[in-house]
Amino acid sequence: MSGFRHVAMFRWAEGTTTGQQDEVAARLGELPGVLPEIREYSLGTNAGVNPGGYDFVVVADFADKDDYLAYRDHPAHRAVVEEFVSPIAAERAAIQYEL
Amino acid sequence: MSGFRHVAMFRWAEGTTTGQQDEVAARLGELPGVLPEIREYSLGTNAGVNPGGYDFVVVADFADKDDYLAYRDHPAHRAVVEEFVSPIAAERAAIQYEL
Repeated sequence: MSGFRHVAMFRWAEGTTTGQQDEVAARLGELPGVLPEIREYSLGTNAGVNPGGYDFVVVADFADKDDYLAYRDHPAHRAVVEEFVSPIAAERAAIQYEL
Repeated sequence: MSGFRHVAMFRWAEGTTTGQQDEVAARLGELPGVLPEIREYSLGTNAGVNPGGYDFVVVADFADKDDYLAYRDHPAHRAVVEEFVSPIAAERAAIQYEL
């Protein structure tokens, strides 16, 4: 399989409500309907198996780097990041790689 | 789709050689042949698109949490982690979630 994958993990700030966390997942979950460049979009909440894990993850697959960049910079994505993700994110870990 | 996903990102320590990094990918890449519990196994090296990203990522899919735990605790996996990953890892970010 070929393609380009973006992975971003977040640790939510202390005091963040589950309502805020659910809102992030709900808003991000709307993006595949807006951005046809998204081939696969997987959102995950820590299953609580191991200590020290991050709270939330986005795994997004694209045909190529350009499609990823279109997603990264799209106003609909930026709006969700600025309004819902950044305000509650204490830590972020990310990587992009060729599939 | 249902299943259980493990994602782990690593930042390699300064002074790490590309030979050591390649060795990690090669050794991990052998695990699907040893562990039938691994349904999908994706290893990635940072494509260099964004600043501040992690260096390496493992995205591993399993049928369920128990299959993930079998992988996590399998001697073949532990050996690769102890001999090749841990010695060069400066930072690790991980999460497990239900697909």
